[in-house]
Amino acid sequence: MGSTERIRNVAKRVAKWARAGHQMVVVPSAMSGETNRLLGLAKELAPPKQTPDYERELDMLAATGEQASSALLAIALQSEGLQSVSYAGWQVPIRTDSAYTKARIESIDDARVRADLQAGKVVIVTGFQGADAAGNITTLGRGGSDTSAVAVAAAMKAQECLIYTDVDGVYTTDPRVVPEARRLQTVSFEEMLEMASMGSKVLQIRSVEFAGKYRVPLRVLSSFTPWDIDIDVEANSGTLITFEEDEHMEQAVVSGIAFNRDEAKISVLGVPDKPGIAYQILGAIAQANIDVDVIIQNLSKDGKTDFSFTVNRGDFTKAMDLLRSNVLPGLGAQDVVGDTKICKVSIVGIGMRSHVGIASKMFGVLSEEGINIQMISTSEIKTSVVIDEKYMELAVRALHKAFDLDRAAG
Amino acid sequence: MGSTERIRNVAKRVAKWARAGHQMVVVPSAMSGETNRLLGLAKELAPPKQTPDYERELDMLAATGEQASSALLAIALQSEGLQSVSYAGWQVPIRTDSAYTKARIESIDDARVRADLQAGKVVIVTGFQGADAAGNITTLGRGGSDTSAVAVAAAMKAQECLIYTDVDGVYTTDPRVVPEARRLQTVSFEEMLEMASMGSKVLQIRSVEFAGKYRVPLRVLSSFTPWDIDIDVEANSGTLITFEEDEHMEQAVVSGIAFNRDEAKISVLGVPDKPGIAYQILGAIAQANIDVDVIIQNLSKDGKTDFSFTVNRGDFTKAMDLLRSNVLPGLGAQDVVGDTKICKVSIVGIGMRSHVGIASKMFGVLSEEGINIQMISTSEIKTSVVIDEKYMELAVRALHKAFDLDRAAG
Repeated sequence: MGSTERIRNVAKRVAKWARAGHQMVVVPSAMSGETNRLLGLAKELAPPKQTPDYERELDMLAATGEQASSALLAIALQSEGLQSVSYAGWQVPIRTDSAYTKARIESIDDARVRADLQAGKVVIVTGFQGADAAGNITTLGRGGSDTSAVAVAAAMKAQECLIYTDVDGVYTTDPRVVPEARRLQTVSFEEMLEMASMGSKVLQIRSVEFAGKYRVPLRVLSSFTPWDIDIDVEANSGTLITFEEDEHMEQAVVSGIAFNRDEAKISVLGVPDKPGIAYQILGAIAQANIDVDVIIQNLSKDGKTDFSFTVNRGDFTKAMDLLRSNVLPGLGAQDVVGDTKICKVSIVGIGMRSHVGIASKMFGVLSEEGINIQMISTSEIKTSVVIDEKYMELAVRALHKAFDLDRAAG
Repeated sequence: MGSTERIRNVAKRVAKWARAGHQMVVVPSAMSGETNRLLGLAKELAPPKQTPDYERELDMLAATGEQASSALLAIALQSEGLQSVSYAGWQVPIRTDSAYTKARIESIDDARVRADLQAGKVVIVTGFQGADAAGNITTLGRGGSDTSAVAVAAAMKAQECLIYTDVDGVYTTDPRVVPEARRLQTVSFEEMLEMASMGSKVLQIRSVEFAGKYRVPLRVLSSFTPWDIDIDVEANSGTLITFEEDEHMEQAVVSGIAFNRDEAKISVLGVPDKPGIAYQILGAIAQANIDVDVIIQNLSKDGKTDFSFTVNRGDFTKAMDLLRSNVLPGLGAQDVVGDTKICKVSIVGIGMRSHVGIASKMFGVLSEEGINIQMISTSEIKTSVVIDEKYMELAVRALHKAFDLDRAAG
């Protein structure tokens, strides 16, 4: 939420839904810039070592942003003539573990909220936060307000959880890369997970996982549509993330093209092909808290093999240094080489499960465009390739067209 | 607290005390301007009618300011190498009644704080706030952080409660009016109460009352002194508000001159002198939520009397209208007249109890200066006069000199 003008608009939108007879729990985010402002102050004062004691205080601090916007929204709703009450996470309570700055929700007590809904109130639940068993305030980390909303919807067994974002839905791919990209009316939970994890930043992957676990129907829609549009139009806008596969059978085999240029490739060359080498290499990487994405081990030749994987670009130098100094000497490998100028392009679609030849069609399209594939990784509902970064837009556009994504599903 | 630089300085000061072996609970105020910023946002969104529901949300909102500064101070203390933990009011818990925006503290559980102190931590308790029995967040109203500090000191049976303010102590009178005004090293609780209630804005009267009730020694000192001054100097700086009368016997009979130009005088003339008239006049005023200060009823003459009282200037017109329209007709009084150009000047001193003639000395001084006294009101430890506003500075200076307040007590 931005200015008070923005809060007022949210209140008017909520009031429209309330007057149409819906019981509602609203989970607002902090006012825009507020969380960064607070964390900036903390950074100025922070101790050199980030202890759990420090992280506890960070959460005390950061939690105030959402509490303030929750109270302001309740006030704005009262101005709209509705009864409204806001609750901090600990007041609901939303119980979490004690992992400060990245806590996980353990349980939500719905009694208080349910009583208020029965009494005709619009309930505001403060997002992004909870309290652990000892009563310490915790926060859920980035995108935490979405996660809170989904968790509350699950606890309340809500009919639908509407997530108002700065985009108007989930697209077949990024419209900035492919102008013909089309908004999906529905997308399956599994597809959404693959897209979210591959750089479609519509929703944090955690909130999607949460929705999947508790089978909460999620609708992603735009907070920029005027608050006074027809409620039936709004109710069918955006993209619905469903768990009903039947609906999907009629949809395209491939639902979307995801891409990600935040990764870098590392290859360890001439590794003796014996048990334990994957662990030797990736164990050290994991211990340094570096996330690994695609992992490929080639067929061995003359008792030697090449071992490749991708990491976030930000971790590239750290990973290379670590391998050179700590891992290579004990491994008997010939060399380690890296490439930061790569990207990953994926086709995602639940229909791939029941359709053969989708992956090979993808490879054929890329081949026709003269794009060399460096790595391949597949799952049941996606096929990813790592290619030279400079071909990314070309690859995405070609695949989007080849899989008929610019035409509405029949 | 102001900027992060200011918070850092507070942390260095607290660290100095901690390293000298003191167990400490710190109650910070919000960062400067923050409470006004938050309440400004609420005002923009506020409903026309200020219901308890609205005030509940105001408290949810306003409470975030102090919670943020508490967390930031804990972080700054950790940077100083100390162990520190902050608690919101509800976490202590500080239990209050449910009077939103002006709640009263009912109890403080000291167990959690005491355990932390034992463990060597500096404990930050968030000021200005608490929670009612149902777990709603409440705030204590203006000056609430001081009240919180005193209440926590009382609960912890603290040796002393240091209140860092923007002045360096309690003065014999306002130094802007009398340049010779002198800082008092000690002042009795009762004197402080009289001074606080008469416009010496050093401390909110509620925090002084609280200190009196629980006999918490309060020291008012300046937050602008450098944090690294000698700790023994700091420990004896400012003004100590005590409950030990012995110390005081050696002090001056009169400790200070208080004054107030925020009042207005109202006189009801020619009132039939019969039982019930005071109630008829002041009952109506009280019902309109108007505070009355000085009240005078003159001797009657020919069965008629004049009845005078003072109210805040802001309530003057309301009170006059009320008397004219609702009270006068049923009272049989001749007229009601008012004067907004008055002020109240008081001499305050616990020594007055045992010294006769102090009041008459005051009247003599004013007479010598040609100042006409319009009303007189006395209590055990103060004598107040209402005079023409234009003589205020003259009266204060003359009284300050006559009672030897510009010279240190023997």
